[in-house]
Amino acid sequence: MAAANMTVIRVGESTWSQWEPEDGRFDLEWMTPVLDGAHERGISVILGTPTYAIPMWLARRYPEIAGEPKTGHPLGWGARQEVDYTHPAFKFHAERVIRKIIGRFASHPAVIGYQVDNEPGLLSFHNRGVFQRFTDELRHRYGTVENLNKEWGLVYWSHQLSTWADLWTPDNNAQPQYDLAWRQFQAKLTTEYLAWQASIVREYSTPDQFVTTCIAYDRPSQHDEDMTRSFDITAGNPYYAMQDAFGVPYSSGGAPQGWATSGAWTLFQSGDRMYSSKQAPFLVTETNAGAIGGSAMQYPAYDGQWRQAAYALISRGAEMIEYWHWATNHYGAETYWIGVLPHDQKPGRVYRELARLGKELETAGSALTGLTPDARIGMIYSNDSKWALAGQPCFLLEPPMTGDERSYQKIFEAFYRGAHNAGAPVRILHDTQIAGPEGAILNPAEVAKELPVIIAAGLYIADDSLLDWLSAYARAGGHLVLGMRTAYADHEARARLDVKPAKLDAGVTYQEFSQINVPLEIEATGVLRLSPQARATRWVDYLEPGEATVLARYKHPQFGQYAAVTTVETGAGRITTIGTLPEDTLAADIIHWLVPEKATYWSELPASVTAHSATAADGARIHFLHNWGWDPVTTAAPVPMCDVLDPELASLEKVELGPWDVRVLREDKGDQSAHS
Amino acid sequence: MAAANMTVIRVGESTWSQWEPEDGRFDLEWMTPVLDGAHERGISVILGTPTYAIPMWLARRYPEIAGEPKTGHPLGWGARQEVDYTHPAFKFHAERVIRKIIGRFASHPAVIGYQVDNEPGLLSFHNRGVFQRFTDELRHRYGTVENLNKEWGLVYWSHQLSTWADLWTPDNNAQPQYDLAWRQFQAKLTTEYLAWQASIVREYSTPDQFVTTCIAYDRPSQHDEDMTRSFDITAGNPYYAMQDAFGVPYSSGGAPQGWATSGAWTLFQSGDRMYSSKQAPFLVTETNAGAIGGSAMQYPAYDGQWRQAAYALISRGAEMIEYWHWATNHYGAETYWIGVLPHDQKPGRVYRELARLGKELETAGSALTGLTPDARIGMIYSNDSKWALAGQPCFLLEPPMTGDERSYQKIFEAFYRGAHNAGAPVRILHDTQIAGPEGAILNPAEVAKELPVIIAAGLYIADDSLLDWLSAYARAGGHLVLGMRTAYADHEARARLDVKPAKLDAGVTYQEFSQINVPLEIEATGVLRLSPQARATRWVDYLEPGEATVLARYKHPQFGQYAAVTTVETGAGRITTIGTLPEDTLAADIIHWLVPEKATYWSELPASVTAHSATAADGARIHFLHNWGWDPVTTAAPVPMCDVLDPELASLEKVELGPWDVRVLREDKGDQSAHS
Amino acid sequence: MAAANMTVIRVGESTWSQWEPEDGRFDLEWMTPVLDGAHERGISVILGTPTYAIPMWLARRYPEIAGEPKTGHPLGWGARQEVDYTHPAFKFHAERVIRKIIGRFASHPAVIGYQVDNEPGLLSFHNRGVFQRFTDELRHRYGTVENLNKEWGLVYWSHQLSTWADLWTPDNNAQPQYDLAWRQFQAKLTTEYLAWQASIVREYSTPDQFVTTCIAYDRPSQHDEDMTRSFDITAGNPYYAMQDAFGVPYSSGGAPQGWATSGAWTLFQSGDRMYSSKQAPFLVTETNAGAIGGSAMQYPAYDGQWRQAAYALISRGAEMIEYWHWATNHYGAETYWIGVLPHDQKPGRVYRELARLGKELETAGSALTGLTPDARIGMIYSNDSKWALAGQPCFLLEPPMTGDERSYQKIFEAFYRGAHNAGAPVRILHDTQIAGPEGAILNPAEVAKELPVIIAAGLYIADDSLLDWLSAYARAGGHLVLGMRTAYADHEARARLDVKPAKLDAGVTYQEFSQINVPLEIEATGVLRLSPQARATRWVDYLEPGEATVLARYKHPQFGQYAAVTTVETGAGRITTIGTLPEDTLAADIIHWLVPEKATYWSELPASVTAHSATAADGARIHFLHNWGWDPVTTAAPVPMCDVLDPELASLEKVELGPWDVRVLREDKGDQSAHS
Repeated sequence: MAAANMTVIRVGESTWSQWEPEDGRFDLEWMTPVLDGAHERGISVILGTPTYAIPMWLARRYPEIAGEPKTGHPLGWGARQEVDYTHPAFKFHAERVIRKIIGRFASHPAVIGYQVDNEPGLLSFHNRGVFQRFTDELRHRYGTVENLNKEWGLVYWSHQLSTWADLWTPDNNAQPQYDLAWRQFQAKLTTEYLAWQASIVREYSTPDQFVTTCIAYDRPSQHDEDMTRSFDITAGNPYYAMQDAFGVPYSSGGAPQGWATSGAWTLFQSGDRMYSSKQAPFLVTETNAGAIGGSAMQYPAYDGQWRQAAYALISRGAEMIEYWHWATNHYGAETYWIGVLPHDQKPGRVYRELARLGKELETAGSALTGLTPDARIGMIYSNDSKWALAGQPCFLLEPPMTGDERSYQKIFEAFYRGAHNAGAPVRILHDTQIAGPEGAILNPAEVAKELPVIIAAGLYIADDSLLDWLSAYARAGGHLVLGMRTAYADHEARARLDVKPAKLDAGVTYQEFSQINVPLEIEATGVLRLSPQARATRWVDYLEPGEATVLARYKHPQFGQYAAVTTVETGAGRITTIGTLPEDTLAADIIHWLVPEKATYWSELPASVTAHSATAADGARIHFLHNWGWDPVTTAAPVPMCDVLDPELASLEKVELGPWDVRVLREDKGDQSAHS
Repeated sequence: MAAANMTVIRVGESTWSQWEPEDGRFDLEWMTPVLDGAHERGISVILGTPTYAIPMWLARRYPEIAGEPKTGHPLGWGARQEVDYTHPAFKFHAERVIRKIIGRFASHPAVIGYQVDNEPGLLSFHNRGVFQRFTDELRHRYGTVENLNKEWGLVYWSHQLSTWADLWTPDNNAQPQYDLAWRQFQAKLTTEYLAWQASIVREYSTPDQFVTTCIAYDRPSQHDEDMTRSFDITAGNPYYAMQDAFGVPYSSGGAPQGWATSGAWTLFQSGDRMYSSKQAPFLVTETNAGAIGGSAMQYPAYDGQWRQAAYALISRGAEMIEYWHWATNHYGAETYWIGVLPHDQKPGRVYRELARLGKELETAGSALTGLTPDARIGMIYSNDSKWALAGQPCFLLEPPMTGDERSYQKIFEAFYRGAHNAGAPVRILHDTQIAGPEGAILNPAEVAKELPVIIAAGLYIADDSLLDWLSAYARAGGHLVLGMRTAYADHEARARLDVKPAKLDAGVTYQEFSQINVPLEIEATGVLRLSPQARATRWVDYLEPGEATVLARYKHPQFGQYAAVTTVETGAGRITTIGTLPEDTLAADIIHWLVPEKATYWSELPASVTAHSATAADGARIHFLHNWGWDPVTTAAPVPMCDVLDPELASLEKVELGPWDVRVLREDKGDQSAHS
Repeated sequence: MAAANMTVIRVGESTWSQWEPEDGRFDLEWMTPVLDGAHERGISVILGTPTYAIPMWLARRYPEIAGEPKTGHPLGWGARQEVDYTHPAFKFHAERVIRKIIGRFASHPAVIGYQVDNEPGLLSFHNRGVFQRFTDELRHRYGTVENLNKEWGLVYWSHQLSTWADLWTPDNNAQPQYDLAWRQFQAKLTTEYLAWQASIVREYSTPDQFVTTCIAYDRPSQHDEDMTRSFDITAGNPYYAMQDAFGVPYSSGGAPQGWATSGAWTLFQSGDRMYSSKQAPFLVTETNAGAIGGSAMQYPAYDGQWRQAAYALISRGAEMIEYWHWATNHYGAETYWIGVLPHDQKPGRVYRELARLGKELETAGSALTGLTPDARIGMIYSNDSKWALAGQPCFLLEPPMTGDERSYQKIFEAFYRGAHNAGAPVRILHDTQIAGPEGAILNPAEVAKELPVIIAAGLYIADDSLLDWLSAYARAGGHLVLGMRTAYADHEARARLDVKPAKLDAGVTYQEFSQINVPLEIEATGVLRLSPQARATRWVDYLEPGEATVLARYKHPQFGQYAAVTTVETGAGRITTIGTLPEDTLAADIIHWLVPEKATYWSELPASVTAHSATAADGARIHFLHNWGWDPVTTAAPVPMCDVLDPELASLEKVELGPWDVRVLREDKGDQSAHS
């Protein structure tokens, strides 16, 4: 590892049966030589708690702790993450083993921090204790069943409760208010569980050690922003399809978006999501070494793609890149989750590529830590809206006619990808970081200066304080962009009584909306410049303009009555409303209009090249140029630059990129006034 | 509502928890102002019983009443229609609340009728009591297990019973005789349940009030003809895809046939199905207002399509059109089942379109009630065959190789659509209305005069008396048309021992049949005129002609040995046999041959226009012209007509139709001899 | 039957409720007239035990014997093969009824043999007793949990056992070592069960009677080679898509590979699989009469195809062809499993075709029994590898990203089909027939003489003794061909620590591999001649040649770095390594290179014609020529031949074949030196 320039490892997670082979019998010392050996070689260690994989003896003695994805149907033991982590019989044993491990090793000089549990939030626990607590919390929040009946509109379909004991279990629920409350509640259980683990670890940790968990961002039962409040730093586990899915322009080639993402743009989106959890730099605790996902999904990177992924994440604030895992297992469930060393244990291609990366990062030193990634556009992320649209989806999949659990993500990604394709960097802001029940958290006028454009798309769940904040942002000079479903429902997932978009002076209203199965042509009617292939997809809000100017219309005998894009001045700013889901071209066209000055810095980049930038801790301007394709390219540097990864290359006026290459450059002189 | 020319509302269904918030505590008076308010405005009221959505307190106290779709697996509470409505613990409470409600409001002057329950027959109850009753009924019908063993052929796969306790539950049944008996039994439970509710309501109702239920015709566990015998009038809830699915010529555009139908032709088919239940005019108790089906299925009508749907249903006997529902819910499961008023509660496009329709119907007055829809072709509908083919399906869906639950419907629809496309109106006759265990119900000779052509397609289950009747119909002068699977099995779903088609002198026989995955070309060999694009699809019976004349053959080295269509005279009539599933062109070609005179009335209708006609109560001839498309068209009237919806337009010789338009016309002078 | 030249029938299976209508009450005599009647007509009888369909009274009394596909979820009664045949309550009753039946009829002169049970191995029993025995067997094999923890690598994901009671049930298992052991164990239960039945039957049978079972080769829980050791002869039930799926060149037309196969080539593969179980001629106990598979799968043969199928099976060693079944049922689950007589019970097309076949076989007499099918290539079949790749699949099906249970079969079939298309006959060898834990079973040098080429593809599970044997075979002069996944894992499904391919001097190594979604072009770099349309599909091993010569490379910027096909001399022989899954053209190109002399015997066969050959018991050379298409063809005979099926046709120099025709020929003079 040391030879490969590895500087940090993660150990100890999911090895409970090693730490505690039988109930109350502990074996801790096998870890000592590991930590000592790392320390001797200058390798730091993140020590994990082992709780996400419980030993079978615990499952055998207390079968009641098995998580129930359906009421009364406990999950069978055999993989991991099968346990109801709110159950006291689990927590008792988890606490004991955590105290043993952390108490023993907290003072070891190799340990720089802790990871509690691993990728939490996989399940929705339908266990009896969990459901009873859900009922209790509703009772505390709403006071009486009469009040709940009223707030949730339970008169419909005869759902009124006569007593709290009437609350039905979630298994066959069809009530969106219940559904949202249940999903929020499940995420809260995850937040609580991790905060509890973190507090135990902190009884032993030293002040310079951090506590975190590693987050799989697509887990359903977690709220990343809420959850990371208990941690010192965010840590995430981005996985992604490699090979052709990295190509720019993007084509998925069949690789789906899910726990593994698809597309070079998703590397940046994952980075921005991780940054957004705490609005700060972050750790990457796991990412693709060899092929990932098991024997049915073997797509190891093309030569060069590891460097590309790593610098993409670094450009958005990653301060560490760890690979899962070092040596590939010869047995067990993850035999085909390929590590740095292949099954023959001999250094090979992955090793060579990562050793080169390690060498480069050693060369770069502190130049690439403490970066502030550039951002020209803010995008609001709402876990509540994600959950509500998962239960109340807005896209048709046929046949059969079922909704799409990823409805929110698809809306968000359409705009993120548009921004990426248009070269406009994004800062993701959580709704919960902007405004809360007590009102504004951020100052709208200050945000309008820092992020002159904010996109709120798919923001189905928005309480009054958030809508007020968005209004204030626009009036203070910001350009607020509304996408489909935004400002439709309130915090209880009730469709608002207001004319839509609710409570925003968008100069346009709609009463109806329609899905569309065939993309629609669209024509510009104002200042917006549209490409011939720009299309509206999946959805049409029946926008009827009031004071707003129509920027685009549909070419269709019915939908042509309605505006596709409108804009209106409001106070010192502006609100633009988009009534459809833009495909890539239309999305990029809109972004180009929103951020027209963007294209000037790197002139005429080849089609396969992306450019990202950040400001280093010392104020230096850092640029990341990726070539996402097989053909070598050369581009002119707008100002002389030096190569961060190779100090001998200075005052560069041309930048050459090989196949699947990336260059990290620092401006020789900081011409920052125009491009911050 | 009054301003929108609404004249009738439905109230009270699915609000049990409102009527009876706790066991035995009733709250009835909230309904009084609703009924009073309606009455003051001249709006009539259909009062519903609330039984299809039970309150949670009832589910909590008597969990044994939860319906079990699988033995021992009760359905979780959370939506509606989850209860075993044969269970006495349910019936006790249902009866009590019905008596309270109907007893209190039967005398209210606004109440014109009652709807008991709602869209029954959703489930197949596997509850213990239901299964035990099934066993008892088999015991009563067959007497001994030895007799059942013999009738059902239980020797195969060692299924012979030694005692009634041996009867297996339906969960893993693979026996088609059992399967048909089980489906029939479930439908009978539904019929009984509704008759029981109707009898309770009739203890209170006044002579001028009617009793009905609203039927979703695709529910598996119901027999519409049997069920409606307990009612004064049929009421149905047709739903359908709108927008492009209304286009003529028809293309589904991906909208499936199911609880919602797809195609303008299905509006007429739904009307004819509702008419057929009691062979009488009917009510439409629910139909599309805004977009239907939840947030994942949003396709609100194009301008004009509401009128089109309403007049299509009226042309086939609808005497009322109600929309579900008035104001769109802001909460609950049907938040995206859009009503007349959108979520902002302000009259909008739906309101305007329906208000116009209401105004027109007010103008039309009694001219459009009591219609007798024209019919040139009879089509036999068989719920038994539908069930038997669902369990013994005849179409291959691959992969995997599973049958198609809608096999019967696909066969029936192929011919109905053919008739519709050829402009030949259809009267649907239930098999149970034609002949029964005691023999003929209708007189074959009289039917042959009224309906000179009868199509029996997919009539897999047919007892001897029905086959005898079909023979008699042909001998008496009728033209009997046999489609695939007709006259194959007996009333026990046993393949008949006879040569097929069994017991009919069709002049043709077959021993084998084959699915075909690729449509086959077909060539006419007789008087039948075939379009170049006519095709045989999905199925080939190996028809070997005897005395029959071959009208068409397949172009195929193997299937070309067999006839595709044959015809033979029998007595004063004729039997035509079709050995394949015709696609639209072939089906229309066949119908044109069966009903050659049809095309003469409206000469040269544009391709997007359909014409339907009916005779009013006063003998006037009424014509409905629809333009199912965007382009305006004009057509010549064969005789001068006046506009039923606009008295100022009289003696019309040309009829203009705008986009998605419909005109309702009355002949100025009744030239009825040629066109009745 | 006699008139149709039927000479053997199977009776008595799946009629337990007939034999024993109630517990302990037996009725045996209904069979007597059946056996007597057969005997009088010269028809032999295979008598079955009825155990695969238990009577309901047994299921009712002992519900604990119901098989559990999931722990605690017994399969509902209603079809057949629902019982845990390891359960003593079942075995007690099964033994009693077997003794009654066989004891009564063993001495009947019509009985020539016995079939015990029917198509076993359908389920994987998760019943308590089965799982407890699994645990006990692991305890006996591994001694201690510590040893199991070590052998299975249970440290990962905290799976270490503290005691045997910790072993988890298979329901949610994610551990490949467990998975393989479980599948092997289930197959062993089937082997044991059949051996137990055979031993009971043998207490009564006479020396000239045989005992067998009829095998459905795709059943998951069976090992055909191990299972047939208890039998006197192999018997199998091949089913297959007919009609266009028989066409050559092959196109599936949508017919899947599964319990029914698709493609004329699969007839020969099925024959070779049956031959391989005991390396001896075999019986066909069931095969397609009319359309098979239920009412949703009706594709009866084209005229002539029955003869084609029968002679294809005979050419590979079939000594009997039985059809399932004689008369088509009018009731029950298999109403649409069409027999020789259709539902109208009158002899028809199927009868005529099979009667002709019977007549021909009568004419052929002993000329077609005792054949030794020709073989030029050996192919290794590994049930262990099939199971391991089913649990550790190597093909991507998307979306979602799940593996393919038929991964092994797809690899095997790619090479088998290649050999078939190239005209090179195959001998299938079980891994368990080659080498075992005690070392070599066959002599490598002798095999190298008899089978100069052996293909080992998909041989994922291979213990050291098997790999040693393969090495020895090549060193002794054989040409060993390695396909993807071969020599990767050991007998515990652990990825080997060796460089791959492990333990074979292939002159090439790889560390990585990749799936490919788009077929890759490939170019020859040596003696291999490639067709322009040759492609690599699905998979690329990153082959890095050492001493081996590269024969082909990929055309791809990344994969082009690696060899696609390499070859190297080793000892007196050669090892060729193929790093991808060849599609049909590439597979045939490779086979042509492996067996270059093959194409010479029948020169210029038409594209739709295949030729197979065998040596009769008397040394005569028999040739089977099939024309798999509609167009008649003529081809020249390389030596004069006579027609086995029509003695009047002798000294033929030209062979004419009609549509879907087959000719069986004997060489007039045996020119066997070149073509054995």
